[in-house]
Amino acid sequence: MNTFPECFPCFLSQALRVAQMIDCTTDQVKRLLDEVALMIPDIPLSRTPPHTASLIYRKIAGITGVADPFAAVKKQCTEAALRMYPRLREKIASAKDPLFTALQTAVAGNIIDFGVETHFDLEEDLDSMMNQQFTLCHYDDFKQELANAERILYIGDNAGETVFDRLLIETMAKPVTYVVRHEPIINDATLEDARAAGLHGVAELLSSGSPAPGNILPLCSDEFFVHYRQADLIISKGQGNYEGLSEEDRSIFFLLKVKCKVIARHIGIAEGSTILKKQGKR
Amino acid sequence: MNTFPECFPCFLSQALRVAQMIDCTTDQVKRLLDEVALMIPDIPLSRTPPHTASLIYRKIAGITGVADPFAAVKKQCTEAALRMYPRLREKIASAKDPLFTALQTAVAGNIIDFGVETHFDLEEDLDSMMNQQFTLCHYDDFKQELANAERILYIGDNAGETVFDRLLIETMAKPVTYVVRHEPIINDATLEDARAAGLHGVAELLSSGSPAPGNILPLCSDEFFVHYRQADLIISKGQGNYEGLSEEDRSIFFLLKVKCKVIARHIGIAEGSTILKKQGKR
Repeated sequence: MNTFPECFPCFLSQALRVAQMIDCTTDQVKRLLDEVALMIPDIPLSRTPPHTASLIYRKIAGITGVADPFAAVKKQCTEAALRMYPRLREKIASAKDPLFTALQTAVAGNIIDFGVETHFDLEEDLDSMMNQQFTLCHYDDFKQELANAERILYIGDNAGETVFDRLLIETMAKPVTYVVRHEPIINDATLEDARAAGLHGVAELLSSGSPAPGNILPLCSDEFFVHYRQADLIISKGQGNYEGLSEEDRSIFFLLKVKCKVIARHIGIAEGSTILKKQGKR
Repeated sequence: MNTFPECFPCFLSQALRVAQMIDCTTDQVKRLLDEVALMIPDIPLSRTPPHTASLIYRKIAGITGVADPFAAVKKQCTEAALRMYPRLREKIASAKDPLFTALQTAVAGNIIDFGVETHFDLEEDLDSMMNQQFTLCHYDDFKQELANAERILYIGDNAGETVFDRLLIETMAKPVTYVVRHEPIINDATLEDARAAGLHGVAELLSSGSPAPGNILPLCSDEFFVHYRQADLIISKGQGNYEGLSEEDRSIFFLLKVKCKVIARHIGIAEGSTILKKQGKR
């Protein structure tokens, strides 16, 4: 997905949010905003937003001296999600359709996100999210492709959300390769975060090779591409991965909560919706 | 009021909103965003936001070639408000406390605003706004100062809102000088807009001498200052005027709806509140 004009104020807002989170001085905040603003003329509309975000977060790290501002937040989210894990596993196991309930659980976990301006209380909001109907749900296609799948590529999104992905992976009971970011970026899951969520026990873990907060193919490693080509079912979590993969001409199931107007318009549904959207043929 | 870090993404959003409203091409929109972004390093936090906004809207006019993008919108808002005028005048006249109802009417009219990201349906939203309780209301002070006032300075805000100001002015039944912007800026009222609302029949009209979308004193004319110093009651409508006058050490009644987080935090109340706030002593 290309960058849209509305993304530019959002880039500034993201920089500001990080600066405020790590208690930058007013001078640091202003310098950061100035520097990010000066980057804008060099950001082409043809580039995906997560690609630009990776450059902006690098700038933030350079100015603030804080390389991983979300380290503590990621740990807290994973721990909170792990506390909920036994109850959710029980809920899925006793559900009328465990696979569907596991999909609802996994998409509910997508409320964990510090890259967009949303506020969430994980324990409180998750229950209402679990009861939210999918606005778009290609469940029959998903079930059918899953039945035949031997190699599943599951492209993860945020730390903590990883625990909810683990529940879906356990329910699918198929061989899964779980993809994480190569380096810390916003609150996205890295190998370390995936291990903290216990994903190494249920999936093969794989770095995308890229630090972008979304699966931007031109930035991914050769190793990632081998898995990407061989997979017979791909699950892509969250907006960042959607932005990176939305133009791909192959079967991908996007599982996400729509958190901004630009993505809502691109998909053609309302902000706040949750979707399991099948793209492509094969 | 100074510029706060949150104002910078908002400056870009404002430029974008105007560009989209006048159907700019994608290239024009990008160029506009680039140019406004390049202005950011030169915007000091010590400057009031409306001062910066006046420079940004001038840049927008330069790039798009549209000097007054809100001309048609202002006309429509004034006409819509004039259609509501007879019904509202009747409501005020038959109210238990006409002055208080007129204040509620005037602040309800402050929903008309194209400088902030709000959507309103004038006819539909006004009734619910009229029933909204003031979050902060120095009504007793206002009544007392009004009783003794001989020279009232009423600093207007948006075109269309002018009609609701007219109702308050008619209800106060005192000599009023009504202040408008010197040139078209966003949808703010100019002399022409004030006349279209019928304000010339109930008040002396005065240009602030400045094109800023807020009453920024260093940009105002000597003529304005004469009235400003002599007034024994000042009513300031809307956020832009609040931003320009919030640090003034003299009695001013701010009558406005709080439409952004920055102003909400500055006043210390929730976004969406309406206030009649007395500032200063004298």
